[in-house]
Amino acid sequence: MANPLGQLHEEKVFKDPVHRYIHVRDELIWKLIGTREFQRLRRVRQLGTTYLTFHGAEHSRFSHSLGVYEITRRIMEIFHGRDQWDDSERLLVLSAALLHDVGHGPFSHSFEKVFGVDHEEFSRDIITGDTEVNSVLRLMGEDFPGKVADVIAKTYHNKLVVSLISSQIDADRMDYLLRDAYFTGVSYGNFDIERILRVMRPAEDGVVIKSSGMHAVEDYIMSRYQMYWQVYFHPVTRSAEVILSRILHRAKELYESGYVFRNSLAHFESLFKGSISLEDYIRLDEGVMQYYFLLWQDEPDEILSDLCRRFMDRKLFKYADMVSISDMHELYKLFEEAGLNPRYYLIIDSSSDLPYDFYRPGEKEERLPINLLKPNGEIRELSRESDVVEAISGKRRTDHKLYFPAELIDSLSDENVKQRIKHILYK
Amino acid sequence: MANPLGQLHEEKVFKDPVHRYIHVRDELIWKLIGTREFQRLRRVRQLGTTYLTFHGAEHSRFSHSLGVYEITRRIMEIFHGRDQWDDSERLLVLSAALLHDVGHGPFSHSFEKVFGVDHEEFSRDIITGDTEVNSVLRLMGEDFPGKVADVIAKTYHNKLVVSLISSQIDADRMDYLLRDAYFTGVSYGNFDIERILRVMRPAEDGVVIKSSGMHAVEDYIMSRYQMYWQVYFHPVTRSAEVILSRILHRAKELYESGYVFRNSLAHFESLFKGSISLEDYIRLDEGVMQYYFLLWQDEPDEILSDLCRRFMDRKLFKYADMVSISDMHELYKLFEEAGLNPRYYLIIDSSSDLPYDFYRPGEKEERLPINLLKPNGEIRELSRESDVVEAISGKRRTDHKLYFPAELIDSLSDENVKQRIKHILYK
Amino acid sequence: MANPLGQLHEEKVFKDPVHRYIHVRDELIWKLIGTREFQRLRRVRQLGTTYLTFHGAEHSRFSHSLGVYEITRRIMEIFHGRDQWDDSERLLVLSAALLHDVGHGPFSHSFEKVFGVDHEEFSRDIITGDTEVNSVLRLMGEDFPGKVADVIAKTYHNKLVVSLISSQIDADRMDYLLRDAYFTGVSYGNFDIERILRVMRPAEDGVVIKSSGMHAVEDYIMSRYQMYWQVYFHPVTRSAEVILSRILHRAKELYESGYVFRNSLAHFESLFKGSISLEDYIRLDEGVMQYYFLLWQDEPDEILSDLCRRFMDRKLFKYADMVSISDMHELYKLFEEAGLNPRYYLIIDSSSDLPYDFYRPGEKEERLPINLLKPNGEIRELSRESDVVEAISGKRRTDHKLYFPAELIDSLSDENVKQRIKHILYK
Amino acid sequence: MANPLGQLHEEKVFKDPVHRYIHVRDELIWKLIGTREFQRLRRVRQLGTTYLTFHGAEHSRFSHSLGVYEITRRIMEIFHGRDQWDDSERLLVLSAALLHDVGHGPFSHSFEKVFGVDHEEFSRDIITGDTEVNSVLRLMGEDFPGKVADVIAKTYHNKLVVSLISSQIDADRMDYLLRDAYFTGVSYGNFDIERILRVMRPAEDGVVIKSSGMHAVEDYIMSRYQMYWQVYFHPVTRSAEVILSRILHRAKELYESGYVFRNSLAHFESLFKGSISLEDYIRLDEGVMQYYFLLWQDEPDEILSDLCRRFMDRKLFKYADMVSISDMHELYKLFEEAGLNPRYYLIIDSSSDLPYDFYRPGEKEERLPINLLKPNGEIRELSRESDVVEAISGKRRTDHKLYFPAELIDSLSDENVKQRIKHILYK
Repeated sequence: MANPLGQLHEEKVFKDPVHRYIHVRDELIWKLIGTREFQRLRRVRQLGTTYLTFHGAEHSRFSHSLGVYEITRRIMEIFHGRDQWDDSERLLVLSAALLHDVGHGPFSHSFEKVFGVDHEEFSRDIITGDTEVNSVLRLMGEDFPGKVADVIAKTYHNKLVVSLISSQIDADRMDYLLRDAYFTGVSYGNFDIERILRVMRPAEDGVVIKSSGMHAVEDYIMSRYQMYWQVYFHPVTRSAEVILSRILHRAKELYESGYVFRNSLAHFESLFKGSISLEDYIRLDEGVMQYYFLLWQDEPDEILSDLCRRFMDRKLFKYADMVSISDMHELYKLFEEAGLNPRYYLIIDSSSDLPYDFYRPGEKEERLPINLLKPNGEIRELSRESDVVEAISGKRRTDHKLYFPAELIDSLSDENVKQRIKHILYK
Repeated sequence: MANPLGQLHEEKVFKDPVHRYIHVRDELIWKLIGTREFQRLRRVRQLGTTYLTFHGAEHSRFSHSLGVYEITRRIMEIFHGRDQWDDSERLLVLSAALLHDVGHGPFSHSFEKVFGVDHEEFSRDIITGDTEVNSVLRLMGEDFPGKVADVIAKTYHNKLVVSLISSQIDADRMDYLLRDAYFTGVSYGNFDIERILRVMRPAEDGVVIKSSGMHAVEDYIMSRYQMYWQVYFHPVTRSAEVILSRILHRAKELYESGYVFRNSLAHFESLFKGSISLEDYIRLDEGVMQYYFLLWQDEPDEILSDLCRRFMDRKLFKYADMVSISDMHELYKLFEEAGLNPRYYLIIDSSSDLPYDFYRPGEKEERLPINLLKPNGEIRELSRESDVVEAISGKRRTDHKLYFPAELIDSLSDENVKQRIKHILYK
Repeated sequence: MANPLGQLHEEKVFKDPVHRYIHVRDELIWKLIGTREFQRLRRVRQLGTTYLTFHGAEHSRFSHSLGVYEITRRIMEIFHGRDQWDDSERLLVLSAALLHDVGHGPFSHSFEKVFGVDHEEFSRDIITGDTEVNSVLRLMGEDFPGKVADVIAKTYHNKLVVSLISSQIDADRMDYLLRDAYFTGVSYGNFDIERILRVMRPAEDGVVIKSSGMHAVEDYIMSRYQMYWQVYFHPVTRSAEVILSRILHRAKELYESGYVFRNSLAHFESLFKGSISLEDYIRLDEGVMQYYFLLWQDEPDEILSDLCRRFMDRKLFKYADMVSISDMHELYKLFEEAGLNPRYYLIIDSSSDLPYDFYRPGEKEERLPINLLKPNGEIRELSRESDVVEAISGKRRTDHKLYFPAELIDSLSDENVKQRIKHILYK
Repeated sequence: MANPLGQLHEEKVFKDPVHRYIHVRDELIWKLIGTREFQRLRRVRQLGTTYLTFHGAEHSRFSHSLGVYEITRRIMEIFHGRDQWDDSERLLVLSAALLHDVGHGPFSHSFEKVFGVDHEEFSRDIITGDTEVNSVLRLMGEDFPGKVADVIAKTYHNKLVVSLISSQIDADRMDYLLRDAYFTGVSYGNFDIERILRVMRPAEDGVVIKSSGMHAVEDYIMSRYQMYWQVYFHPVTRSAEVILSRILHRAKELYESGYVFRNSLAHFESLFKGSISLEDYIRLDEGVMQYYFLLWQDEPDEILSDLCRRFMDRKLFKYADMVSISDMHELYKLFEEAGLNPRYYLIIDSSSDLPYDFYRPGEKEERLPINLLKPNGEIRELSRESDVVEAISGKRRTDHKLYFPAELIDSLSDENVKQRIKHILYK
């Protein structure tokens, strides 16, 4: 593909704590970074509510997106000149790497669940709709935005290109493990990315890894495994997520029931109605969301105001191991008896609901498995070669927990109800 | 001092990327961290607009405050049992360390200048007023909040206690250098904090440093020097700060001139009137501020909406070296002629206005100088012993720059005016 | 136990790249470090021939021994004051930690095999014999040296004390993983030692780990697994080890056959005779050994001089996968035919011969397994709780390889023999 | 220049803790690394006796030489394609970078002083004499070895080429600062090498640095300054060096006086005679040297045996501040009176004798100063632009110290002499 935009007169660099420097030489990439839709990612945290558990985790999807771009750029340098790699796809891959998260909303996971929206659709809309991103991409040709969207949606014809952004060992995952480890301060997410990049090879159906690098890949998989249990599934983070999700549910429920909010709902009204426009969506970020949570602390609805105060002031729910169905049934009734609406104050949360996996080659996963390239040219799926990976792959370890407001229970006046609840929760 | 709150049943730890772990053993500290006023610091960035230059700098005053506490806690361990140190001051110092920034507002520097408020006053108000922080502190005794406020205000009678929080080598500065270096990713801010802590000794008039540790302190001073030039004075950050300050000025000016804003000004009205309450102030954070900037993008006032878009979408001003007074005068007129209000689009910014210094023992500085303790018991001020420190101390290197919207100038229709402006700016 | 030696007037510190600082407060430890037997460990590399593969691995057993001491010292701080821990054992544990490797000879593994000596015996001899170490230890009481030797020999009555130095997660292993990772530069050896130390608890039968720290321990086990495959079993290192072992064999064989060496054998004679004295042993170090290898390059015996040149100039053997028994038989004959003594030039090396294991709770292993302490007080062996550890434990993955001088084979004049050899080796 | 050797079939990499990986693509470089003269550098420590102060400093000139090569290789990538740079010099620069230290002997500094030899001459001899290094270099052309030697000797006609290896900011210094900091564990040696490499530009008279990188260069100079005071001039290291130098003096003196050594002097005889051959020199390494020190512990000459024991067992001299000339005179006599030969037991050592400097543009220094390239093309010497550098440049801060055996003085039987000595030394 011709490159009508060409190279920058002088290379631009961003100082990055994870990759040291992020290098931009293509005018196209420089212009994309400058668009308002991409700059908006500065206002969406990479790890949602995790900063309430790991206070360092205040980094944004903006820095992650630059990191994914940088890793992809380095892969391009390694692929350059190899037979199986078509260098005319280079700017397409780099654009997709940079923009793969551009549609993410604030606190995406809970947000999407409650409002039934999908960040992948918004990514496509931002790339192909009436946006600054789109007008930059179109400088490369009218069909270029559609191709970028296809790569991100994994429908692009060239599987190798897709695999760079969406496989079990893609630039996205490599950056987020390193970055989340760096900002939280946990050491588990580290692996030898230079070694992995050095053994990556292009192949027709996607990236393969020279088998001499298997141990480095094992280490990467173990980093994922550790990060999920240490960071991503952390019960305190889940507690914040539970509260966040309850806030959005409550607000929507109130709206639907005709409740009149004290303050304007500007940003939320179309969401509640299920008809949010692209422009409104782009304006939504975590600052805006928290602005409403601050306002809603003063709403007369006690559940909404209590939940918002909890979220903003980090007065989270406590958690306990899941109880039996009969105990759960009893708890539900006891909460009602005590005047604690169980739909908002007694929540089951399952880590297996999370969109994470350490490695599941067997399931119908959209992400491609990791293939090793043996010296004799044979291709072998990773878990068939590695005991360690085999031990954790395909095993969906589910962890159900109960979340509840411990201090409200402690202050219940009906001593019988209180003791009964505590007996079940803490037995 | 007796400690009515006592120790936690089990030590709590926070994972921290800078200090590895932050250890909390005192019930008092644990309760203070849980207050809403302290949790609010999560929503105020440590480095204001710096994240627009160094994308990693998204860390908050919350994590910095924990860091200052942790360093102080380690100093307490070193001082414990030494003659000059009175261990009954321990919880007072730790509380002051934790709370020293609790009054900071959003984007403090510009904010305080435009609205004539002072975060130090708000710190005192939060500590002594009707807040969660105050009610926790009062558990230690009725006079405890006042003493904490005095330590932070540097008026407390025990100079040694004050010096731990406010000297040229206090826990505050040591944490922010290490933390800002970590999150921006620049290497300059590193110094050997373990070595410095090991050579700190309590003395009547404040902390002193054993002279055997002089080179470690030199290295710390050089880190400061480097961080100021590389990070804190970075012209791109200054550009964002210039725009931010202009936004606040414009909004205030419009309000005072009777302009009717499209949206409610709830949070800002009392500020514009100069009568902000403590409760309103506490609700202000950077999310709220950016919420208004998003709204103001749609205001009919073109200057306000343009500046807000610039800030949110990072379309910053360019900069040039300061020009002569006569050139400045001409530029001013040319901008007016071109329809660009020079009060908003032609801004002089001086790094010497910044509340930073690498080391200035000579000036009437509130921060105490660094004193070295020689083996013979003699006390010597650092810059008298160190050539390197002497070379940079007391020299206020001022850097004046001009900030302006380059792309607006490029698109001026009057070719003469445009060329004349560019000639002056870029000569 | 009383401490007749007491504390140092002022704490001594060593700068250490792995643990930042190593702190010595006990006069006993300070004196032990100053003994000539302990200083000798500076002249024995921690990783033997590994520096020929990873050039950074030039660190000595001296720095490792200090590291084991430092980790143990930190564990002592954590155990201090706990019920199950008897603080009167403190100096005993610290001395054993410091001295656990004091009997190691040069290139221990090969050296011990060829000469039938055992570094553990020499450790006991150095501790209980007529040495500087012994005379320092006796300052603590006449029975103290014997107790230190017993702890190192794992025969001491207090199993908890033994487990600190010799279990699957002892201070020895924790230090060498971190240290070897640091000096080789591979990232795999990193794990969160602070977290592990924080969850260690004393128990009657040995150290246990609070189950909340299980993932940190998993990560430690995986570090071990990775270090073994990436570093300790590296085939290039094995090649150097093979040559080293052949040199010693050849020299011994020559000596026994009455061969007259050109140069004095001073250090080796008693070894060859199987009657080395403690004093002679202590004088042996890797510098001395390499001195002889340099001299032996000039010996008329071609095998000995060739092997010595190979070792000193790093002209190592190449390796290939193990072949079938019949092929091996043929190779053996072909080598003889070609004039290459197969006992020196065709060597089978098996990684399973190495004194390493990632984790083998099932086997009759002297090292104690890792036990987890559940919140309810139950003790569970690690591999029963962790899928990942279970996957790699007890599996002795053996890797047989053939080592040979590729360039000698390439230069064989008999084309048939050469082709036949290469056909078998590289098929 | 044509490259008769070409590229390796597959890139070779060395894992390096400082630069992560060292990349070799040229057959020439690969062959040079394999020579016995280059492999010998594994047996010469980079920092001589420093390991006796900083136990991590056990790294060799081998790893440093690879590091200098790697930095130079990266500079070549940056210079590639620029006008002022002639790519045909590439392999010459890389060879010189790799071999710049190839002539270093064991504990070079003292060794050269005592025996009146010069490692630079040996470097030239190794490069142009009958060696493996020479035969590899000659594969590039008969004049190639001479050109490599000229670059190292700074006599090569192309000043830019020379400046890459020998200027105030050359690859040699950048590697040793980073490497020595890494292995000792001190943090001072760190600077942002990536940034410095990015602002290096080729110019006719040598490398220049874009002035935008001035602060990074200041930081590098400060790292040097700190490393010299913290590491290179450390008085404990100096003490070991003093003893080492006395050992060599004593042995030479004994030899010249006709003393008969118990053991053969093989390696030293030609040195003592002042007629060492290249082949003998190449065989000398630190292991050999220490072998003799071990043997000499048993020599009847008490001074020699005592000094050797001190060195091997690290029983070093203590130090005190230099005294007045009259006091020195008296001390000298008192030592003689006490039977302590002052020529061996009362030594003045001056740090200014060391071949180090932080930055001295003014003196007749062989190393070129650092020149900054301003945006307008002007060239300015660094210390004229930087206050910090100006503060430390050209100042030869000399530190004289007295070294002596404190415990021998303490055990003197003549109480008067003892007290008088101690009075002068410790006053």
